[in-house]
Amino acid sequence: MSARLVVLRLGHRRRRDERISTHVGLVARAFGANAIIYSGEEDKNVLTSVKKVVLNWGGPFDVIYVRNWKNMISDWKKEGGIVIHLTMYGINLPDIINDVRCLFAQGKNFLIIVGAEKVPGIVYELADYNIAIGNQPHSEVAALAVFLDWLFEGRELVKNFKGAKIRVVPSQRGKKIIKNDKS
Amino acid sequence: MSARLVVLRLGHRRRRDERISTHVGLVARAFGANAIIYSGEEDKNVLTSVKKVVLNWGGPFDVIYVRNWKNMISDWKKEGGIVIHLTMYGINLPDIINDVRCLFAQGKNFLIIVGAEKVPGIVYELADYNIAIGNQPHSEVAALAVFLDWLFEGRELVKNFKGAKIRVVPSQRGKKIIKNDKS
Repeated sequence: MSARLVVLRLGHRRRRDERISTHVGLVARAFGANAIIYSGEEDKNVLTSVKKVVLNWGGPFDVIYVRNWKNMISDWKKEGGIVIHLTMYGINLPDIINDVRCLFAQGKNFLIIVGAEKVPGIVYELADYNIAIGNQPHSEVAALAVFLDWLFEGRELVKNFKGAKIRVVPSQRGKKIIKNDKS
Repeated sequence: MSARLVVLRLGHRRRRDERISTHVGLVARAFGANAIIYSGEEDKNVLTSVKKVVLNWGGPFDVIYVRNWKNMISDWKKEGGIVIHLTMYGINLPDIINDVRCLFAQGKNFLIIVGAEKVPGIVYELADYNIAIGNQPHSEVAALAVFLDWLFEGRELVKNFKGAKIRVVPSQRGKKIIKNDKS
């Protein structure tokens, strides 16, 4: 995974979106992204929750808030990066995944946008690709996870995180963890 | 998809889990399950939200509440069904997916359990399989989606729903839908 992959969560609303936005951040980290960027209402609770997981379970993974997401997207494109917006109205994943994998393999940086309830129309225009994870209503958390899982073809599920204080020992029953306080 | 696949959402808490539990229900439907069963606190808002999506976007898909989930799991097992609990502490998906696909292909009915914050220890014992979608903390919404996507090998993303009043026409820009009020 040499190219950089960053997730942009648009339109966060305090309280209402707190848990969903936290799940978006945790999924971004667990499924191989390099960073999550939140926009919308600034929310220390969400940033803190995701940062705490990075501290305990390892990284590297950046957690950032930006106010001006339009500038952020423009800059990304000016620097040659690809912008992908996940939306149920887009081209269905199986019909576009090969193009997307190809671009990433060629070293293009990816900005993956997931919105909250209402995504401004301009996002559909700014995106290089509007991609649906099935054209049914479900969840931005699920859409992000499945998109990254297809992009990385399952390799992200066995990714090793650096500096982890806690690791799971996979087991058929119960909860086994290893704690490493030295890291 | 001849065998029956049902998702059981354990430990729902009103308000706090409302949106996450709704996303779990919508993911269950969109990713090919036959039904979602909620347990924990009874919550009409969640049931109504998911049922409304079935009404507009098609089915068949059942939305049910059960109080006694232990009995439900016992009955499932007595009738020869397989119980799979998704948990970050379990066997990692890539190491178990072939066994699971094989059982489903043989016609075994699947009950897929996803918990809220704390899952009672007995669930780890009752489950035939405790499976992790990567051994990292993330989201039950993501775990369910990726599990079903691996089980159905992407076929669920092009599933046709019956009786849909609304369908998306996949497109590179904007939102195109077809409304069918006769169904």
